Amino acid sequence: MAHVTLDELNRMDRQAFIAELGDIFEHSPWIAEAAYAPRPFPDLHALYQALTDTVRNADATRQIALIAAHPDLAGKAAREGIITTDSKMEQASAGLDRLTDQEFEKFHKLNDAYRAKFNIPFIVCVRRHGKESILRQFELRLANDEAAERATALNEIFRIAALRLDQRVTAPDRLKVHGRLSTHVLDTYRGNPAAGVKVELFEITSFRPPRRIVCATTNADGRTDGPLIADQPIPIAEYELRFEIGAYFASNGTPAADPPFLGIVPIRFGVAEPEADYHVPLLVTPWSYSTYRGS
Amino acid sequence: MAHVTLDELNRMDRQAFIAELGDIFEHSPWIAEAAYAPRPFPDLHALYQALTDTVRNADATRQIALIAAHPDLAGKAAREGIITTDSKMEQASAGLDRLTDQEFEKFHKLNDAYRAKFNIPFIVCVRRHGKESILRQFELRLANDEAAERATALNEIFRIAALRLDQRVTAPDRLKVHGRLSTHVLDTYRGNPAAGVKVELFEITSFRPPRRIVCATTNADGRTDGPLIADQPIPIAEYELRFEIGAYFASNGTPAADPPFLGIVPIRFGVAEPEADYHVPLLVTPWSYSTYRGS
Amino acid sequence: MAHVTLDELNRMDRQAFIAELGDIFEHSPWIAEAAYAPRPFPDLHALYQALTDTVRNADATRQIALIAAHPDLAGKAAREGIITTDSKMEQASAGLDRLTDQEFEKFHKLNDAYRAKFNIPFIVCVRRHGKESILRQFELRLANDEAAERATALNEIFRIAALRLDQRVTAPDRLKVHGRLSTHVLDTYRGNPAAGVKVELFEITSFRPPRRIVCATTNADGRTDGPLIADQPIPIAEYELRFEIGAYFASNGTPAADPPFLGIVPIRFGVAEPEADYHVPLLVTPWSYSTYRGS
Amino acid sequence: MAHVTLDELNRMDRQAFIAELGDIFEHSPWIAEAAYAPRPFPDLHALYQALTDTVRNADATRQIALIAAHPDLAGKAAREGIITTDSKMEQASAGLDRLTDQEFEKFHKLNDAYRAKFNIPFIVCVRRHGKESILRQFELRLANDEAAERATALNEIFRIAALRLDQRVTAPDRLKVHGRLSTHVLDTYRGNPAAGVKVELFEITSFRPPRRIVCATTNADGRTDGPLIADQPIPIAEYELRFEIGAYFASNGTPAADPPFLGIVPIRFGVAEPEADYHVPLLVTPWSYSTYRGS
Repeated sequence: MAHVTLDELNRMDRQAFIAELGDIFEHSPWIAEAAYAPRPFPDLHALYQALTDTVRNADATRQIALIAAHPDLAGKAAREGIITTDSKMEQASAGLDRLTDQEFEKFHKLNDAYRAKFNIPFIVCVRRHGKESILRQFELRLANDEAAERATALNEIFRIAALRLDQRVTAPDRLKVHGRLSTHVLDTYRGNPAAGVKVELFEITSFRPPRRIVCATTNADGRTDGPLIADQPIPIAEYELRFEIGAYFASNGTPAADPPFLGIVPIRFGVAEPEADYHVPLLVTPWSYSTYRGS
Repeated sequence: MAHVTLDELNRMDRQAFIAELGDIFEHSPWIAEAAYAPRPFPDLHALYQALTDTVRNADATRQIALIAAHPDLAGKAAREGIITTDSKMEQASAGLDRLTDQEFEKFHKLNDAYRAKFNIPFIVCVRRHGKESILRQFELRLANDEAAERATALNEIFRIAALRLDQRVTAPDRLKVHGRLSTHVLDTYRGNPAAGVKVELFEITSFRPPRRIVCATTNADGRTDGPLIADQPIPIAEYELRFEIGAYFASNGTPAADPPFLGIVPIRFGVAEPEADYHVPLLVTPWSYSTYRGS
Repeated sequence: MAHVTLDELNRMDRQAFIAELGDIFEHSPWIAEAAYAPRPFPDLHALYQALTDTVRNADATRQIALIAAHPDLAGKAAREGIITTDSKMEQASAGLDRLTDQEFEKFHKLNDAYRAKFNIPFIVCVRRHGKESILRQFELRLANDEAAERATALNEIFRIAALRLDQRVTAPDRLKVHGRLSTHVLDTYRGNPAAGVKVELFEITSFRPPRRIVCATTNADGRTDGPLIADQPIPIAEYELRFEIGAYFASNGTPAADPPFLGIVPIRFGVAEPEADYHVPLLVTPWSYSTYRGS
Repeated sequence: MAHVTLDELNRMDRQAFIAELGDIFEHSPWIAEAAYAPRPFPDLHALYQALTDTVRNADATRQIALIAAHPDLAGKAAREGIITTDSKMEQASAGLDRLTDQEFEKFHKLNDAYRAKFNIPFIVCVRRHGKESILRQFELRLANDEAAERATALNEIFRIAALRLDQRVTAPDRLKVHGRLSTHVLDTYRGNPAAGVKVELFEITSFRPPRRIVCATTNADGRTDGPLIADQPIPIAEYELRFEIGAYFASNGTPAADPPFLGIVPIRFGVAEPEADYHVPLLVTPWSYSTYRGS
């Protein structure tokens, strides 16, 4: 869907406004409709606030209807293609469109257990999670009581809405929905940045081989030209950076053992805050290295 | 085979002596026989020296016969069980008895290329190598000329003999045929050794999933009760230590993210000197770690 | 005073026994006398226990007399040479015999304040403290109430007694009255221990230039031949290790800037537990280093 | 002296131009005069090039006259106040105006030895050196032959000119005459930047107590608000950063020993390249730290 500016939104008539924002909340254009009156919005935060306040101030019946309007996660509707485009892309981001039959079965069972207990679909902002983290959310949230779970579901709906707004509306400000993952390689053998180091980022899960997300090479400053992940939440998951340190030291003629003591240096770490900055540097010689969560 | 002491060897008659040491060199009892005269040996080094000098001083014909007496590596003889017990155990140590058909094929081809060029079997002291390193030896040595390669083959035979002597003969001294791999975990969050950390050691190869070699738990001093590898050469290969750091910090109530920033800490390193000491410590907090080749 | 073995003590008559141990407690031979009956002692801990239990079980009058029998710290008696040999050596260990007039004045005032409040001399096991720490003890303990302070004084007397016993009596066991300070230098540029590094240990105080305690050079294993401090408590104080790293890297031809980025590497640290082991290693390249409290 | 823009210089008449730039080279306005013709200069590098080319292309007599026009370093002229304002400020920057009589004597002797050998004053761009480094320059350069030394003297004059131009002329570009010293403190106990850490920077010399250059406190990002040194060359010297780490960890309630294992953390390092960036971070827990030359 094409971008729209906040300024354009502020100047639209009611019908156009609803057409533009009606699907920020799944199958629930009444929320956009209610946000028409308080226009113009000085910034995106104000628009977001107006939309979410509409939900917060709605009665329980409407809130439950909003929740119920969401498709099951990795559910039959998704498999059969009868969900909204946004939902489809969101579920794809976590790989929920590429489940094995066994995984599909597992999600299906958890979905059923969830529906049986709460009588609503399980809603989670999937862009903020890896597949393993979603399964864990199921288990954690199945332990909630009904009131807590309804509040959690609405909160997840707000997160989904924030990400949809962020992708749809160009404004002077931005919602804080993005994290950032970066690295930096310092050659402490020479006392300067390590240039030309190949770096790969993998997602680690217990049930599949590591999945490579991105591959980059460090520049003259020892950094990759851009962040490894940016302009999106970093899905809650376990990751592994792999640095080709043996090749780097060989390329600049550093004496080394054969095979080198350090060939591939793997750094495995978990992301718990999708909207945070994760800077994971490597300080390295042919015989030692350090890493840490930096800033 | 039962151990014998150097003292017993020194007091044996010729026949018993040859029976005891005849198979230190593959199918070549004449070498032990020649070492009977210079008895008694003050230490194991002297015996080893006498045996290897016999080979060094033999004429080319006998040297080549010695070389030719060795079985092909991972060859048909091994598959059919018609090699010496020592050879069988040695080849097993590198996993050469558990090759897939594809791997068997690869070894077979290299063996044939080697035989075609040098007209001798490929000999390598397999206890000093992982499977991948053996393949690499094939490639490196195929580039040798005949004289260099014959010297290399004899040198490998001496290494095999040293390991067989080490396993067979109890003496006041020991041949330097063993390496040692150890670790140490320091909790730099608390400033003391990290006790109760589960550590696993894997061998990493390019063609198979990591193979777990040993599993241990750190004691009150942050060390494992014994070295991870000792009393043998450390096969030339790539290894990965995995430390269960997330579980350790959770067990002593250290504040952490969920999932923790550091769950499993993998340290991947190459061993190039099978007879050396490799001490690979981990200094760790919930947010940082360092490692290095220590002593 | 000459050493005596526990065995000899166990076989002494009453007079000799008291002559030997009468001065373990300052001017209070009655304590040794009371420990004569329960002989023989299986080990030094048992003897120590018997002596200290005698004090613990004595009535308040005797306990106060014991406390009162101690000289003032850095007091006039000490200046005039009329204190016991043990006290003299103990006070000298913390440099209390080399006070400037100003420092003497400060101790004198604190002593007077202490006597005015508690009516006993200030007793501290000076071998466990640097000069600055003793002054700090004065201030901390001046805040105690009388009962707490009397218990503290007795506890310090027990510590003094333990150290005197440790120096006097040879036994199969030892009292835990010693700490140990050691270091280790690893050259992470080369991946091996750093040999030939000059190391100096200083005590740091706020009122005087650093005082050099010991100077050593690392051996082939990157360690000093013996610990930097051992067989005594490590006085509670601030220390600085200085490693001549620039000279080390220059001596083995490592490329470096001029002047080198790292010339002298100072590591400053505080000791809070005189009976503990402090291992303070240095991992170093020409451009980086790490240190930590090791084990 | 007031700043002038390159644009203004380009539009000046000859007399004003010479008045403005006549003292970029000590008592040698002919150099500015020669640079009048090739105006206008597109940038400061071009002006600098024109000025220094004038000197390079001058005959030996004029070059020697230029050299001879410089005052002795820390010499009588300086003491008596009869040197140019620029020279005065430059000599002051290295503390040459505050020499003890003993130091004055040492400089005087070296000056005399230098004059005796080369028959010119010793010229060095003092803003690039600490006092100790200047003495070292004397010694190194006394070993030169006359031709090498004349080239060195001219090169130093060019460095002085570059710094004077940099201070005098505002232009779209800048000459590379500045270095930058910065730090960064990361709390690897908590996994975030260490805010509120007091940092002091000292210059270390062998003949005087450390001289404090700057004091700062880290902000929320663990950095000081500005670099510790910037907009000038970093004098070639030895420095020490001191971080009040004990106070930092105490302030956020981190458990620590008393006294803390780490109170003041000193990091001593040498600067060899005055125009380079030196980033010297500290990664620290209450029990460990690392530092390195970063970027």
